[in-house]
Amino acid sequence: MLKPLGDRVILEVQKEEEQKVGGIILASNAKEKPQTAEVVAVGDGRVLDNGQKVTPSVKKGEVVLFDKYSGTEVKYEEKTYLVVHEKDIVAIVD
Amino acid sequence: MLKPLGDRVILEVQKEEEQKVGGIILASNAKEKPQTAEVVAVGDGRVLDNGQKVTPSVKKGEVVLFDKYSGTEVKYEEKTYLVVHEKDIVAIVD
Amino acid sequence: MLKPLGDRVILEVQKEEEQKVGGIILASNAKEKPQTAEVVAVGDGRVLDNGQKVTPSVKKGEVVLFDKYSGTEVKYEEKTYLVVHEKDIVAIVD
Amino acid sequence: MLKPLGDRVILEVQKEEEQKVGGIILASNAKEKPQTAEVVAVGDGRVLDNGQKVTPSVKKGEVVLFDKYSGTEVKYEEKTYLVVHEKDIVAIVD
Amino acid sequence: MLKPLGDRVILEVQKEEEQKVGGIILASNAKEKPQTAEVVAVGDGRVLDNGQKVTPSVKKGEVVLFDKYSGTEVKYEEKTYLVVHEKDIVAIVD
Amino acid sequence: MLKPLGDRVILEVQKEEEQKVGGIILASNAKEKPQTAEVVAVGDGRVLDNGQKVTPSVKKGEVVLFDKYSGTEVKYEEKTYLVVHEKDIVAIVD
Amino acid sequence: MLKPLGDRVILEVQKEEEQKVGGIILASNAKEKPQTAEVVAVGDGRVLDNGQKVTPSVKKGEVVLFDKYSGTEVKYEEKTYLVVHEKDIVAIVD
Repeated sequence: MLKPLGDRVILEVQKEEEQKVGGIILASNAKEKPQTAEVVAVGDGRVLDNGQKVTPSVKKGEVVLFDKYSGTEVKYEEKTYLVVHEKDIVAIVD
Repeated sequence: MLKPLGDRVILEVQKEEEQKVGGIILASNAKEKPQTAEVVAVGDGRVLDNGQKVTPSVKKGEVVLFDKYSGTEVKYEEKTYLVVHEKDIVAIVD
Repeated sequence: MLKPLGDRVILEVQKEEEQKVGGIILASNAKEKPQTAEVVAVGDGRVLDNGQKVTPSVKKGEVVLFDKYSGTEVKYEEKTYLVVHEKDIVAIVD
Repeated sequence: MLKPLGDRVILEVQKEEEQKVGGIILASNAKEKPQTAEVVAVGDGRVLDNGQKVTPSVKKGEVVLFDKYSGTEVKYEEKTYLVVHEKDIVAIVD
Repeated sequence: MLKPLGDRVILEVQKEEEQKVGGIILASNAKEKPQTAEVVAVGDGRVLDNGQKVTPSVKKGEVVLFDKYSGTEVKYEEKTYLVVHEKDIVAIVD
Repeated sequence: MLKPLGDRVILEVQKEEEQKVGGIILASNAKEKPQTAEVVAVGDGRVLDNGQKVTPSVKKGEVVLFDKYSGTEVKYEEKTYLVVHEKDIVAIVD
Repeated sequence: MLKPLGDRVILEVQKEEEQKVGGIILASNAKEKPQTAEVVAVGDGRVLDNGQKVTPSVKKGEVVLFDKYSGTEVKYEEKTYLVVHEKDIVAIVD
């Protein structure tokens, strides 16, 4: 299992065919090409200047819109994961 | 439904014909081309260095002037939305 | 009506002929070409890192010197307005 | 009258002939060409992150050394003024 | 022995053959080529603006994913170590 | 007399022949060519984000090593002075 | 004697032959070429935004790994010293 550090979030990227789940079609603006993915693991959050930790506002199991060009790809037991920072997650898809 | 993260705001961009609503015609200065849009969803706000959250100062249903080149376009159930950061919203149109 | 967000200020730019009001003639240094304008609307101010809001130090009706290349032009009911950040206002003309 | 905003200071630039007042001759290092000027008006100061205002440390009537390439020139009732930020003032000449 | 300063962490980089430990195969995104390594020593942490130290969230003996192009290589008693900053560690591999 | 503002320090640069005082010979690394100088006047210090002033840690009369390419040269009553920021002073020579 | 200012540390660089002390051979990554040196003098530390001083975590007499391209070389009584900032010291060699 992978445990992300800080404000990192591990996502399971959804395949091209699955990208219209919930009727959403994503068009990119300028250099950003967002995609949807499922949250697989969430870090403990970043540390503020006063020492307080800010828990990321996404939870395991949620589907999120993220910025395609962010993060690092990782393969683990036949699946592809993407490790992103919380700030690269644009919205939660209900 | 899309729930924006942090200080992000989801806007429903108004069409070219609708852009004079309220008698406003927008001329752009330099590289900025602002437009009007209706606020569709608002994030919980950004976290300050002291841990406090700053609720965005726009509300669902308000018409706003925003900076055209900011944000990420998203299509959801036949409509086009734009996800921007609160700082990219210039003014509220009453 | 336009309600500016944050530390933004809406100005009614004075025409070229009116630019010597009060005996002031503006010469620009390097890339800055300041002008005078009347304050039409003022935002609630920016939020400090401690959560406190800083009310802009200009008021509706005041004539100000501003930095010409800042801000976004907006036309509303036959008049031209300029939306600038408070920091782009150089001085108040009494 | 001009009332500068924030940490801005309005200076009355001294003419070339007057630049040796007090026996000072200014040579410039690299791109900086400092000059002397008399302080004409002082802003209320910048706002710190804790909301506190820092009153500029120069006063009306003082002669100061400033960085030539900073600021914005303004003409008012036949005189030339320069609006600079406090940080562009190098030293007070006693 | 090497005692890293601040938020630095000393890693023992795992060899190419060992890089699939736990079934993980790493693919790199853009310029980042992450790798796995074992934590050998951990600094006392960085100092926040309020004077508080933030202990790094990795411990000696843990296997971590890190950003390949970060850090400084060091050889000590026939082994190769890598000194990285905590922020260059992407995730802990359980 | 010159009274430096903020964290500025006025130095009397020592001549080339005097640069080995105390047996020190300075060699420069990359673009930095440090020199020795005597402190002539010290500003009140910079203001921290909490409003507190930090008195510079050099005193009038001390000999210091400074970064040659920093500061602004000033001539006053036949002598050459250099106005630098405290951070450009590398060390005090006892 | 040289007394470094702020978070500066004065190092006595060890000669090429001495660089394997303790069995350490240093290989450089990218542009960084670290070396070992002995700490000769330590500044009082940098000042945090709350006014608190952070004492550097190295002591006189310790051997440290540092980033080769950082700092300023100084010669004093026939020896070569290097003045670096604390952040350029990578690790302490026990």
